[in-house]
Amino acid sequence: MSAEFSHVDASGKIRMVDVSDKPSTRRIAAASCVIITTAAISERPPEPDGLDMVHSARLAGILAAKQTALLIPLCHPLNLDDITVDVLPNARGLEIRSSVATVHQTGVEMEALTACAVAALSLLTSLLTLDRSARMDELVLLRKSGGRSGDWGRESAD
Amino acid sequence: MSAEFSHVDASGKIRMVDVSDKPSTRRIAAASCVIITTAAISERPPEPDGLDMVHSARLAGILAAKQTALLIPLCHPLNLDDITVDVLPNARGLEIRSSVATVHQTGVEMEALTACAVAALSLLTSLLTLDRSARMDELVLLRKSGGRSGDWGRESAD
Amino acid sequence: MSAEFSHVDASGKIRMVDVSDKPSTRRIAAASCVIITTAAISERPPEPDGLDMVHSARLAGILAAKQTALLIPLCHPLNLDDITVDVLPNARGLEIRSSVATVHQTGVEMEALTACAVAALSLLTSLLTLDRSARMDELVLLRKSGGRSGDWGRESAD
Amino acid sequence: MSAEFSHVDASGKIRMVDVSDKPSTRRIAAASCVIITTAAISERPPEPDGLDMVHSARLAGILAAKQTALLIPLCHPLNLDDITVDVLPNARGLEIRSSVATVHQTGVEMEALTACAVAALSLLTSLLTLDRSARMDELVLLRKSGGRSGDWGRESAD
Amino acid sequence: MSAEFSHVDASGKIRMVDVSDKPSTRRIAAASCVIITTAAISERPPEPDGLDMVHSARLAGILAAKQTALLIPLCHPLNLDDITVDVLPNARGLEIRSSVATVHQTGVEMEALTACAVAALSLLTSLLTLDRSARMDELVLLRKSGGRSGDWGRESAD
Amino acid sequence: MSAEFSHVDASGKIRMVDVSDKPSTRRIAAASCVIITTAAISERPPEPDGLDMVHSARLAGILAAKQTALLIPLCHPLNLDDITVDVLPNARGLEIRSSVATVHQTGVEMEALTACAVAALSLLTSLLTLDRSARMDELVLLRKSGGRSGDWGRESAD
Repeated sequence: MSAEFSHVDASGKIRMVDVSDKPSTRRIAAASCVIITTAAISERPPEPDGLDMVHSARLAGILAAKQTALLIPLCHPLNLDDITVDVLPNARGLEIRSSVATVHQTGVEMEALTACAVAALSLLTSLLTLDRSARMDELVLLRKSGGRSGDWGRESAD
Repeated sequence: MSAEFSHVDASGKIRMVDVSDKPSTRRIAAASCVIITTAAISERPPEPDGLDMVHSARLAGILAAKQTALLIPLCHPLNLDDITVDVLPNARGLEIRSSVATVHQTGVEMEALTACAVAALSLLTSLLTLDRSARMDELVLLRKSGGRSGDWGRESAD
Repeated sequence: MSAEFSHVDASGKIRMVDVSDKPSTRRIAAASCVIITTAAISERPPEPDGLDMVHSARLAGILAAKQTALLIPLCHPLNLDDITVDVLPNARGLEIRSSVATVHQTGVEMEALTACAVAALSLLTSLLTLDRSARMDELVLLRKSGGRSGDWGRESAD
Repeated sequence: MSAEFSHVDASGKIRMVDVSDKPSTRRIAAASCVIITTAAISERPPEPDGLDMVHSARLAGILAAKQTALLIPLCHPLNLDDITVDVLPNARGLEIRSSVATVHQTGVEMEALTACAVAALSLLTSLLTLDRSARMDELVLLRKSGGRSGDWGRESAD
Repeated sequence: MSAEFSHVDASGKIRMVDVSDKPSTRRIAAASCVIITTAAISERPPEPDGLDMVHSARLAGILAAKQTALLIPLCHPLNLDDITVDVLPNARGLEIRSSVATVHQTGVEMEALTACAVAALSLLTSLLTLDRSARMDELVLLRKSGGRSGDWGRESAD
Repeated sequence: MSAEFSHVDASGKIRMVDVSDKPSTRRIAAASCVIITTAAISERPPEPDGLDMVHSARLAGILAAKQTALLIPLCHPLNLDDITVDVLPNARGLEIRSSVATVHQTGVEMEALTACAVAALSLLTSLLTLDRSARMDELVLLRKSGGRSGDWGRESAD
């Protein structure tokens, strides 16, 4: 199994992937997750009262994307050109979407996922006071572009 | 809606909850989430090759719990007495469970959820190189004890 | 001069104040500063378009207060019970007010000042794109209570 | 108002500026602020006893410049080529000057302002023990060079 | 071996020690290390030219002690009452000594060692430009007091 | 003495080295240190019981290398292409070796040394519970390549 994971060497030890020889290319990654909470709350989309709660979540996600390499041991520290985080109420709950862009030798999939996850945690801080069963679901990579492996989108994979 | 959220004041502005007048009591919170990935991978539980990957996830989760107040705007900085993170392969995928303990005026629910979320992100860093559709599901609070609102468990809420 | 500063020892070396023998008491500190910018902008108070800009500043200030001991070499790491940051448009510009509370052996004056300063920096990030002469003025301690030196307010000192 | 701020999108939501398509150019930014304290102290310039206090402030400012993107939600994480912070006693008090240089797609104005602000906070930590009315004034951008908008200096704007 | 280490559980997994049931007592720990460099440099004690270099090292060590729990996975986040770091030129080179105090359920040995290690790294940053063979030696715990295991001193152990 | 240190200016003040005009070249640095502990422990190489302890140390070292510029005042924040940390039991104790690579205007010697030092601190956290006299020795730069000063190796310097 170790040979298959780019983060695991022949002896089974986890390691950072050496990107020294990879070319710098433009990379974009998008991710999403959803907060599921009780109907009463999800039917009251967080506006206008909840507006500030949503802003907090967006900012927490943006700040967290910039800390990805300090949180995830094997991620590379890198400059980021753009980070967006949006919170969209929908039929299922509160959907969080993130997008991260850079020009670098490695992708920004983990930065996009981290932005979503921490934005969700920030929302849960408020929601749990009303609904302790609130949960985060379906934290997924939506799409990525750039790098040797090229473009990929979740839809085309289904 | 604002009146119901303890993090939102009368004017709709989000705010930290003032815990100055709350008594310090022993608090424990447990959380969990699950990583769902393709069958081929989930049937090969992460041992021995994946052992280091699991250790990385456990440590990333423990370190992240200690950074909760730096990641989540409204969380209080506090001392923690204990943090555990475990990764358990099961029929559905890789289950992550965390537990956090303190003696403080405020609970550690967010610390437990943050530990799980970041441990999951750490696992996804490795898993996504094999299965880009890997996802985190069901990040939930399992139980909490201590504080004015007393004990609560997810099972009793189902 | 060294004898007068509690942070400077007999040989002129700066040092953290040892608070081991100080009793834990309830401490509150409040601070403020003001952002001065061109009339055209200050007459358009940041609402509703600027609402999110103000929220960002409030959250940046709250998060920064929790990082005070990591930013200021001689500050003690400590738990905080409450942090508030508000942005109030007035005749002079945008006034920022913060308040921090704890029960500890040392005061939270620097935490309150740090919250104001970083909230101001966050506002300047946006304002400088329109008015490069925008500035922060009068970052001051407004009042403090608790501790051996008792209560103090800026008004009574004027 | 939203259209004018580069950090605010059409719907009024604050966002990081996407710098993906901006060329990397050499950027320099300089900022300053001043600490005003009672005459008795300002007449005793901080030397030699205060030397260490000044060094602490300089180092706190340098370290803070490197944390700008973690403190200010919309700032981009970026490499820095040089950071200087100086503390100069003058007739008005203690003047703090900073300069930051990089080669990047975005400017370093906020890094220079953050360096000054945190150096000032570090000085205030010591000064407030003698003079609780000590304050920081006139945190301003002094000049910037590089980028599409070219060079700018505060003097020419006065 | 696992049974002997308090940080390793029965299955060999590393874990944070749960200090929930330990009483809070006053804890002090002291550590030291030495920087060995070429005679020409060590004979020129770092004064006055090197004064600022020594100050930088002291402050870097103080700041690092406060980040111990963010650097060392199994350390508990805790408040600190006092941190001192001193750099003393002696016959062998530059000796660094640290002392950390708290009232807590767990000791501060790692905080004292981290302060010394990072102060030494800060000195090496400057020294390596003159002497690439400069090294840090003998990073040791000097003494500790408080806690169930009582007082201990390195001298008495020799 | 000040003229000789690249981090000290003509007036004796410590400063970051301005790397604006240095060309970006591929840089690699390797460092090592050794943990000396009692024979009984060093003869029991940390496997399998100690495996997780070693993994923790490796990850703590990797994460710390990414925080070098936040720990060491004069280090430049920079992207890193690769970080490796290994723990090797040998006759003298536990040897820690690190290697860091980047393409940048400045070297990564301090990043390699920081990785070793923090990995050693992580190991000491566990070892000190059995042997309070455990110590870290010989933290040294092993070799560096790239940059104006070219390649250097410790062996050739002995």
